[in-house]
Amino acid sequence: MSPNHPFDPLTPREIAKAADIVRNAFPGVTPSFRVVTLKEPAKVEMVAFLENKANRTIKRPERVARVQVSIVESEENKFVELWVDLDHSVILKNEHLVGKHPYIDSDYMQAVENACLADERVQEQIAYLQLPDNARVVVEAWAYATDGTKDMSQRTSMCWFYMRLLDDIDANYYAYPLDVCAEVSEELKVTKIYQLPSSPEDRIHKEPRPFDRRKIHGAEAEYSPGLRTSPRTTTKPYQVLQPEGPSFKTKGNHLEWEKWSMHVGFNYREGLTLHDIRYEGRSLFYRISLAEMFVPYGDPRTPYPRKGAFDLGNDGAGINANDLQLGCDCLGHIKYFDGWHTTTSGVPLKLPNVICCHEQDDGILWKHTNFRTKNAVVTRSRILVLQTIITVSNYEYIFAFHFGQDASIHYEVRATGILSTCPIDIGDNVPYGTIVAPGVLAPYHQHLFSLRMDPAIDGYENSLQIEESHAMPVDVPSFDHTGKSHAQINSYKNPFGVGYETRSSIIESEGGLDLDFTTNRTFKIINESIINPVTGTPVGFKLLPAYSQMLLAYPDSYHSKRSEFGKHAVWITRYNDEENFPSGRHTMQSIGGDGIATAIQKRAGTEESLVRNKDIVVWHTFGSTHNPRIEDWPVMPSEKMVVGLKPVNFFTGNPGLDVAVSTQERNRSVLVDEDNDVNLKSDCCKL
Amino acid sequence: MSPNHPFDPLTPREIAKAADIVRNAFPGVTPSFRVVTLKEPAKVEMVAFLENKANRTIKRPERVARVQVSIVESEENKFVELWVDLDHSVILKNEHLVGKHPYIDSDYMQAVENACLADERVQEQIAYLQLPDNARVVVEAWAYATDGTKDMSQRTSMCWFYMRLLDDIDANYYAYPLDVCAEVSEELKVTKIYQLPSSPEDRIHKEPRPFDRRKIHGAEAEYSPGLRTSPRTTTKPYQVLQPEGPSFKTKGNHLEWEKWSMHVGFNYREGLTLHDIRYEGRSLFYRISLAEMFVPYGDPRTPYPRKGAFDLGNDGAGINANDLQLGCDCLGHIKYFDGWHTTTSGVPLKLPNVICCHEQDDGILWKHTNFRTKNAVVTRSRILVLQTIITVSNYEYIFAFHFGQDASIHYEVRATGILSTCPIDIGDNVPYGTIVAPGVLAPYHQHLFSLRMDPAIDGYENSLQIEESHAMPVDVPSFDHTGKSHAQINSYKNPFGVGYETRSSIIESEGGLDLDFTTNRTFKIINESIINPVTGTPVGFKLLPAYSQMLLAYPDSYHSKRSEFGKHAVWITRYNDEENFPSGRHTMQSIGGDGIATAIQKRAGTEESLVRNKDIVVWHTFGSTHNPRIEDWPVMPSEKMVVGLKPVNFFTGNPGLDVAVSTQERNRSVLVDEDNDVNLKSDCCKL
Repeated sequence: MSPNHPFDPLTPREIAKAADIVRNAFPGVTPSFRVVTLKEPAKVEMVAFLENKANRTIKRPERVARVQVSIVESEENKFVELWVDLDHSVILKNEHLVGKHPYIDSDYMQAVENACLADERVQEQIAYLQLPDNARVVVEAWAYATDGTKDMSQRTSMCWFYMRLLDDIDANYYAYPLDVCAEVSEELKVTKIYQLPSSPEDRIHKEPRPFDRRKIHGAEAEYSPGLRTSPRTTTKPYQVLQPEGPSFKTKGNHLEWEKWSMHVGFNYREGLTLHDIRYEGRSLFYRISLAEMFVPYGDPRTPYPRKGAFDLGNDGAGINANDLQLGCDCLGHIKYFDGWHTTTSGVPLKLPNVICCHEQDDGILWKHTNFRTKNAVVTRSRILVLQTIITVSNYEYIFAFHFGQDASIHYEVRATGILSTCPIDIGDNVPYGTIVAPGVLAPYHQHLFSLRMDPAIDGYENSLQIEESHAMPVDVPSFDHTGKSHAQINSYKNPFGVGYETRSSIIESEGGLDLDFTTNRTFKIINESIINPVTGTPVGFKLLPAYSQMLLAYPDSYHSKRSEFGKHAVWITRYNDEENFPSGRHTMQSIGGDGIATAIQKRAGTEESLVRNKDIVVWHTFGSTHNPRIEDWPVMPSEKMVVGLKPVNFFTGNPGLDVAVSTQERNRSVLVDEDNDVNLKSDCCKL
Repeated sequence: MSPNHPFDPLTPREIAKAADIVRNAFPGVTPSFRVVTLKEPAKVEMVAFLENKANRTIKRPERVARVQVSIVESEENKFVELWVDLDHSVILKNEHLVGKHPYIDSDYMQAVENACLADERVQEQIAYLQLPDNARVVVEAWAYATDGTKDMSQRTSMCWFYMRLLDDIDANYYAYPLDVCAEVSEELKVTKIYQLPSSPEDRIHKEPRPFDRRKIHGAEAEYSPGLRTSPRTTTKPYQVLQPEGPSFKTKGNHLEWEKWSMHVGFNYREGLTLHDIRYEGRSLFYRISLAEMFVPYGDPRTPYPRKGAFDLGNDGAGINANDLQLGCDCLGHIKYFDGWHTTTSGVPLKLPNVICCHEQDDGILWKHTNFRTKNAVVTRSRILVLQTIITVSNYEYIFAFHFGQDASIHYEVRATGILSTCPIDIGDNVPYGTIVAPGVLAPYHQHLFSLRMDPAIDGYENSLQIEESHAMPVDVPSFDHTGKSHAQINSYKNPFGVGYETRSSIIESEGGLDLDFTTNRTFKIINESIINPVTGTPVGFKLLPAYSQMLLAYPDSYHSKRSEFGKHAVWITRYNDEENFPSGRHTMQSIGGDGIATAIQKRAGTEESLVRNKDIVVWHTFGSTHNPRIEDWPVMPSEKMVVGLKPVNFFTGNPGLDVAVSTQERNRSVLVDEDNDVNLKSDCCKL
C-alpha cells in the first residue's frame, strides 16, 4: 500500500482492496457495498504517532477500512459492518447490524419512484387531478421518519408528488405540489395512498378534486436561467487577483497557511473533516466536523410528521457534495480536493471537487490611529476558507471553515436551495406554514446542526469551563455619595454599583448545557495543566455559539427521541473512538435511544463519565427555526449561521500582531471620483 | 443658498453663514462654536416633500442649522443652542442649556493635560516613581463619568498617566500605565491626586513606590511598524479588480445601487447617517443611524467608576472619524465622502474621507442543483458597504452598513484598537480585569450600542410585531401510535408531538423589550395596512438582533441612570423630531433622567405612548461584555458584532432572484493544481 498519512481518506486502491477482501468473505453472495471508508485509527495510537513524528520507532497506525454491505442470505436482507485491516488483509470485525438500516440508496429511491408511478391506484389518483396536458408528474421519495405507526424491520418510503409544466427538465416542480402522497414498502409495493390536508381542520378523506388552475405560476416561480425573467444587468464584474498566487500550500491532504497546519479529511457521511489542527505547531483540535443535522417539519397533520430528515445520517454530506466549479462557487485562486466513494459493486467512485480551498479578504484585522500623531496603522484580515456544498433533494447547505490570522476558527453554514412544499387550497391558511405562491405551502421546520469539536488545547487532556459575568454585590443603600468621605466610600466593595466580575466553574461530568447571553455565559475549553505565563490562567479556546432555539418537538415524540442532541446547545462527553454521531451511527428509521443523551446516561456515575482533565469532546447544537418568508421563494437567499472558536489567554498576545501593514502598493485600490469616474487603466500601477 | 437636498449635511457656505448669524446675535461676545450642524427638517414636512417629489407645489423644507456655542457672559459660562433658519437668516430659537455641558473639547482636554503636567504635586508624584531616564510621561484626560461625588455645575476631568520609553512618538504608552491619577477642575486646577489600587484589597492611601522595572516590555507590546518585530511575509497580495468600475452611482449624497436608493448623511455626533432608504422605490426606512454607545468599566474601585464613556454623546462619531486611506481600509473601487464641521471660531472645517463606499463579494447568494439533472445554478452575492471608522482615545470602532441584493441590511460593528489599561503590581490579580502584560491590567468593560431605526415600511405608520415559535399542545398521552387507527390518530391536533406554530402579538404602547432565542422570538416591523397579496399577512422587515448581555451596573447606579437604553435589547417609541438619542442630547456629566426610559415613562398612559399603526422608532441595544483576552493585546483583533434587517413577506418572492448566474467568464478564478502551481499569466483570459 502507499505510505498514506493515517488521516488520509482511503485511496481508490484501498477501496478496491477492501472490497476484494469483503467479497471473499461472502462466498456465493454478492454484497451490495454501501460504505467503504477509512476507519480512523484509535486515538491513543494516533496521538502517539502525531506527537512522535521524529521518532521512527513509533509505528504508523494500521490502515483500516470500515465497510458496510447489504447482503441477501437465506432470503433474509442483512446489513453488515466489517472492519478490514488493509495492511494485513484481514477482517477485524464482521457484525450483522440487526435492526439497523443503511443510509439512503439513491438507486433504490429511484426504483421507489418508478414503482409509485407504475402503480394503478396512484395513476388513478393522478387522473382525478385532471392535470394540464403539458404536465409531467415528478415523484420525490423520502426516507420515512419514524412516527410510531410502522413496522420498523423493513424500509418504508414516503413519496411526495409534484409536476412540472414546462419541457425544460430544470423547471421548478416544487412550485406544483400535488394532492397525492404514497407510502412504498421495502418490496416496492405501494402500501398506502394519502390525500393531503389543506386547512388545519381538513383532516379526513375527501373526494379527489381536479388541480386548481389558479395555482399555475409564471416565471416568478422559476430559478433556472432559461426560465426566469432576464437577469439584472447592473452588477458589474468583480474579480480577485492574486498576482503572487495563494498563500497556502498543500501536500496531499496536508495543508499549511499562515502559521496554521491541518489535515483535510473527507468521508461519505460528514463530508469535510479536519484533523490535527495546529497553530505555530501547538495543537488545538484533534478533529472538527459537522457530525449530524436534523430537519424536522412542524406541520402536525398526517402524514407530515413523517418528514424529518437526518441529512448526514440518512443522506450523507459527502455523498451529496457538489462538484464545485471554478469561478462559480468561489473567487480567486482555488484548490480543489476530490473525494472517493464506492459503487454498490465495490468499485472506487470519484466524487470530484467536493472541497475547495481558497483565501478571502475579510476587511480590517486591526487598526489603531494614534490621536496625538494622527498616524494610523491598519492591517487587513486574510482568511482561509475550506468549503463544501451539499444538495439534499430540494435544499442546499454551504459549509465553510474560516481560519483567521488571529488564530480564530469560524464555521459558517449557509442554507439555500428550494423550500420543501406541499399543497394548500387557495383561501386556506395554517399556523405552521407560509403560503409562498398560490396553492403552495412552505411548512415551518427546523435545521439543527451538531458541530463536533474534539479539542487538543496544548495537549489531549482538557476541561470545559463555564464563565459568567455578574454584577458584584453592593453593600451600600444608595449610590449618591455626596457628603461621604473618601475613606467611607473606599470601605465598600462595590461602592458605586458599577463593579462586575467573572465567576466560573469547571464541568466535572458528561452532560448537556444551555446558553445564556444574559449572563454572558462563555464556554471555554481549557488545559488546566498549562498556565499562561502572563495572565496566570489556564490556556484555552472559547466557543462563540450561534444562539438558536432547540428542538420544538416534545421530549416523548419520535423526532425528539431520535435527535437527542437537539435538546441542549452544548454537550460534553468523554472521548470514545466509536462515538462520532450524536444521533447514533444508524439514523435511518431509528427509533431513539442511540444518541448522545442515552450514551451519557449509560455512563452516568461511572469513571467514564468524568470530563475534567480528560480527553473530551464538545458538541455544539445550533441552527434555525425556519418559518419561511416569501422571500425564500422560489429559491432561498443564503441564510447564514456562524459558530466561532477563539483563543482566550492561549497566546501571550495578539497572534495577528505580525501581519504586515495594509498598503496601497500591495492592495491597488481605485479611487472613484465625484463624477463616478474611475481611471481604469491606472489600477495596477498607482501607489 | 445652493439647492441642497433637505437631508444634505450643511455645506461649508451654510456653516459659515450660520456662524455669522450667531455671531451677530451675541454682540460684544466671542462665542466658541461647538456645533454647527443640520437641524433635520420636521418629519411631517419632509415626508410631504419625499412623497410628492413630482409635485412642484410642495415646498422644500427650510435649511436650518443647529448651533451650539459656549459663551462667557457676565463672567458666567453659558452653553447655548440656537436654531438658525438659513433660508431666511433668522434665529428660530436661542436657548440657554442650563445644567448641560457641551461634548468634549479637544483643545480644552489638551489644556487639561498641560495643566496636569505643570502641577507641582503631580510632578512630585511622578518623581516618586523614579521612571527610567528615557521615559516620557503621557497624560490622557477623560471626561468625568458621574459617580455622585462631584459638583456637576462645572466640568471635571480625570487624567490617567502613562509613559513611553522610546523616542518614537507612536510607541504604545498604554503598555505603561502609571500609578498616578489626577482630577482637574473647569479652571484647570488639579483638585485631587489619586494613587491607584492594585489588588482588590489595596484600597487605601499608601506610600508611593518606584516604578517596578520588571514591568518593562519589549517589541511584543508595540503595534507600530517601526517598533514591532518584522512582519510575517507569508501573506501574498490579494487585489480586487472591477474592470467595468463599480456598480453604484452617486449624485452628491444620493446613492443608488442594485435597486437600492438612499441619501447619505453625516454629522459630528452620529457620524454616518442614512436617510430615505428604498428598494425598488418602495420606502423601507426613513432614517437609520447609530444613536449612542456607552462603555462602562467594571472595576469597582475608586476612581475607576469614573470611567464610563459615551463615545457618541461625549466624543462624537463624526468628529472622531478617521481620514480613510485608499487601499488601506478597503479593497476595490472606492468612493469617499467628506464631512464638514466647524472650528471653535465658526470657520468651516473639512473632515476628509470620513465615509467610504465600495462593493464586496459576499460568497454565494443562492444556489440550487437539480439532483435529477445535475444542473447547478449559482449566483454570487454582491454587497454595498458604507463604512466609517472612529478613534476614541485608545479604541477604534469600524461601523459598516452592508446592503444586499436580497434586500437585506446588515450593520456590522468591529471593535479594535488598544485596551484601556491601568497598573497592577506583579503578583496581584483581580476578578474584574485581565493581566495582559507584566504590570498591565486591562479592566473588564462593556460596549453597549444603540442602533436607531426609524422605519417606513411601505409608509410611515408601522407597528412592531413579536412572533414566537411554540410547540402545539398535545392531547394524547403517548406518541406510540402502534395499533391506533388512522381515524383515531387524525382526530388529534398534534398527534405525534412534533407540531409547532407561531404565535404573535403587536405592541400597543412604548416600552423596552427583551430577546429570547429559546422561543425564536422575532421582532417584525410591519405595516398593518399593506397586506402581502400572496401570504395574506402584513408586509414587514424583521430584526436579526445581536444577542448581548445588557448593562451590568445596578439600576440605582449612575452608569445605569445615565444609559437607560442599556436595560433592554429592543425599545419602541413614538416618533418625535427631537428624540434622537437614547441617553439624551447632552451626556457630558449627565446625571440621568434624560434617557429613553424616562421619556417613555413621562408619556405613559397618554395618546403619545401608543405605537400601533403610528410613526414609530425601534432602537436595538447590543454590544459586548468585553472581558479582555491577552490576545487583545497590544492591539485587538477586530471583534465583530452584526445586526440584520431582512424583508419578511414584504416582496412576492426572493428579491435577488434576478441576479445573474455566476460564471467563470466574468469571475476569472484561477485553478491551483496538485503542485500548488498556478498559471499566473492566464488568470485574465481563461474561461
